Amino acid sequence: VNRPIALLTDFGNSDHYAASLKGVILSINPAAKMIDVTHEVSPQNIRQGAFVLLNCFEMFPKGTIFVGVVDPGVGSKRREVCVKTRDYFFVGPDNGLFSAAAHKAGTYEVRQLDNQRYFRHPISATFHGRDMFSPVAAHLSTQDIFKSLGKASNLRVHLHIPTPRMIRNGVKGQVVYMDRFGNGMTNVCIGHMPQGKGRRAKVVLGSAKPVPLKRTFSDGRPQELIALFNSNGTLELAVRDGSAARRHRLKVGSQVSVRWG
Amino acid sequence: VNRPIALLTDFGNSDHYAASLKGVILSINPAAKMIDVTHEVSPQNIRQGAFVLLNCFEMFPKGTIFVGVVDPGVGSKRREVCVKTRDYFFVGPDNGLFSAAAHKAGTYEVRQLDNQRYFRHPISATFHGRDMFSPVAAHLSTQDIFKSLGKASNLRVHLHIPTPRMIRNGVKGQVVYMDRFGNGMTNVCIGHMPQGKGRRAKVVLGSAKPVPLKRTFSDGRPQELIALFNSNGTLELAVRDGSAARRHRLKVGSQVSVRWG
Amino acid sequence: VNRPIALLTDFGNSDHYAASLKGVILSINPAAKMIDVTHEVSPQNIRQGAFVLLNCFEMFPKGTIFVGVVDPGVGSKRREVCVKTRDYFFVGPDNGLFSAAAHKAGTYEVRQLDNQRYFRHPISATFHGRDMFSPVAAHLSTQDIFKSLGKASNLRVHLHIPTPRMIRNGVKGQVVYMDRFGNGMTNVCIGHMPQGKGRRAKVVLGSAKPVPLKRTFSDGRPQELIALFNSNGTLELAVRDGSAARRHRLKVGSQVSVRWG
Repeated sequence: VNRPIALLTDFGNSDHYAASLKGVILSINPAAKMIDVTHEVSPQNIRQGAFVLLNCFEMFPKGTIFVGVVDPGVGSKRREVCVKTRDYFFVGPDNGLFSAAAHKAGTYEVRQLDNQRYFRHPISATFHGRDMFSPVAAHLSTQDIFKSLGKASNLRVHLHIPTPRMIRNGVKGQVVYMDRFGNGMTNVCIGHMPQGKGRRAKVVLGSAKPVPLKRTFSDGRPQELIALFNSNGTLELAVRDGSAARRHRLKVGSQVSVRWG
Repeated sequence: VNRPIALLTDFGNSDHYAASLKGVILSINPAAKMIDVTHEVSPQNIRQGAFVLLNCFEMFPKGTIFVGVVDPGVGSKRREVCVKTRDYFFVGPDNGLFSAAAHKAGTYEVRQLDNQRYFRHPISATFHGRDMFSPVAAHLSTQDIFKSLGKASNLRVHLHIPTPRMIRNGVKGQVVYMDRFGNGMTNVCIGHMPQGKGRRAKVVLGSAKPVPLKRTFSDGRPQELIALFNSNGTLELAVRDGSAARRHRLKVGSQVSVRWG
Repeated sequence: VNRPIALLTDFGNSDHYAASLKGVILSINPAAKMIDVTHEVSPQNIRQGAFVLLNCFEMFPKGTIFVGVVDPGVGSKRREVCVKTRDYFFVGPDNGLFSAAAHKAGTYEVRQLDNQRYFRHPISATFHGRDMFSPVAAHLSTQDIFKSLGKASNLRVHLHIPTPRMIRNGVKGQVVYMDRFGNGMTNVCIGHMPQGKGRRAKVVLGSAKPVPLKRTFSDGRPQELIALFNSNGTLELAVRDGSAARRHRLKVGSQVSVRWG
């Protein structure tokens, strides 16, 4: 067995931190298959890291181990965990980074990282990504050691993601993630719509700005603000050939309502 | 056979998009050899993506499959293609991203991506990189399926690259690509020079600014604007230990003339 | 033998330069295990590149070959070398990029890169990363050719790293590296402290600003400037959930003193 190891951190690509994880992993599993999910989560932005993971983890092969290190509480009492879902492992801090993905994956088991034999020594107080999470993932990539990582536990910290509110013939939600294109993903999904209505709903940004609902980006006119259900089935606001963040001050928290019928 | 898969996109390194491609590829070919060319093409800048590809594709081993996703027209009528040159494959939209590299490679064949058995399902309208281009590349990395991808076709969209104009004892061209160092690559090549004259030509930026022609960057004085024939045989303008973009407002489209003898 | 090849450059992630190295390496060793340390060293910042390498090289498995290309003097008289320490190889320019890591590794041997059979041809004057360093590393990854690379030599250029000055019951040092979080690493190490005193020392930034010494980042109050001994045993100044660079104008060269007893 040689499970892929996918790395998601806020370390950036310019310092030695991400490379340190890779070096440690390769020292334990010389044949490791490592994939960078991203190292460009904004410093200490657990929410952003959680959404990146949520948006892509299901694309990976069964067995993939995600090492997540967005960890402002490193060295404090926040716990270190390994989460095992039906198909994936998440290794990192219990600080909300994994809760949304674990919830989406359905049932899951959690182990605390107690067993020091899978750590790098000495264990620093400030870099658990290097000393605990990466080595645990590297060992887990070649051995079925989930149950020997530590005692059975649960996630204690859950990221609060605002839920959309159903209204008469509609739903009210908000932008929960902004991407590099300046597009805003909302918490409204195709599943919130009555079947067949999704494509004809009226979308309103904020209190009064109507936004035409399209099928794809290029159905908008250049610089026009449009809404669409994106590749993950989520309502997204975008500007064709431009940035909704810049042109319409779209941001995490922007309110959106969708009405049908 | 396990052909390398090289990824070139405008997805950036901070969102889940590039990771989604990698997850999909690895799910189809668990032994995939993936290389990031870049994910930092400016959003929807087909020209920039085309030049990055043009500048490096020949460095890769024979058989390499390039997945190119700079795709503002995703979901519209622009077509999806696989281009096969003597040594390489390019998979992505027919929007000009591959035309310059295909032309440089010499003869090439094109197939439309019609055969849905090589796609990820359901196929979204907004993320063909994930649902069509990556899975096609992953299947192609282990199987000789070029001819079963779809019907024989041709590239319809060709990137317009300005050609330099030969003048009496010289050539007039322009900057076609700016790099991260603030250096500007022109469309003038060593091949435009009469043999032996290349090293003694007079280079002029714009209407009147003479630029000394050097062999390498460090032959300039610090902060001096110089010209040189770069590692791809292209005339390049650069500032030693500085940025020609910032110090001399060099940009794509800046006019350059070269005269000899 | 298939030694990992770790890449450290100032090429950035948006151009074709880093991809060119990877293509060349893969063309020579199709099974190459390549790891990106970083391509985001600031343009021509040898010092920054040297520190990134210094901070992580020991995490990598024995045998790892580091290709380092921060090379403002490419094509000039600065020499090309391969450094062999007990456990690692460094391939790149003799310009100070490797001196600190080589010194830390203990004894080392150096070979000039004379033997053109390990180069890519034709050799450009401006891109030795592609034409010399990568191909040498690729050949070295599968063959024991260190001694045939060229004649025995030594490092001639050594990066000047300021040494801390011991004072009565204390030590004076300075910030030598700033990371993406805005944290500043100093040249003061845990080894400079009398045993047992490290945790109770008084740290002063500049002439008079006391900085509380903590165990980990989260022991500070939000936005508080703190000092700690980091995961490499180095005194580091940081702001919890913020940037010491922005909030306290911390930068390379900022003076720090530590006193005990």
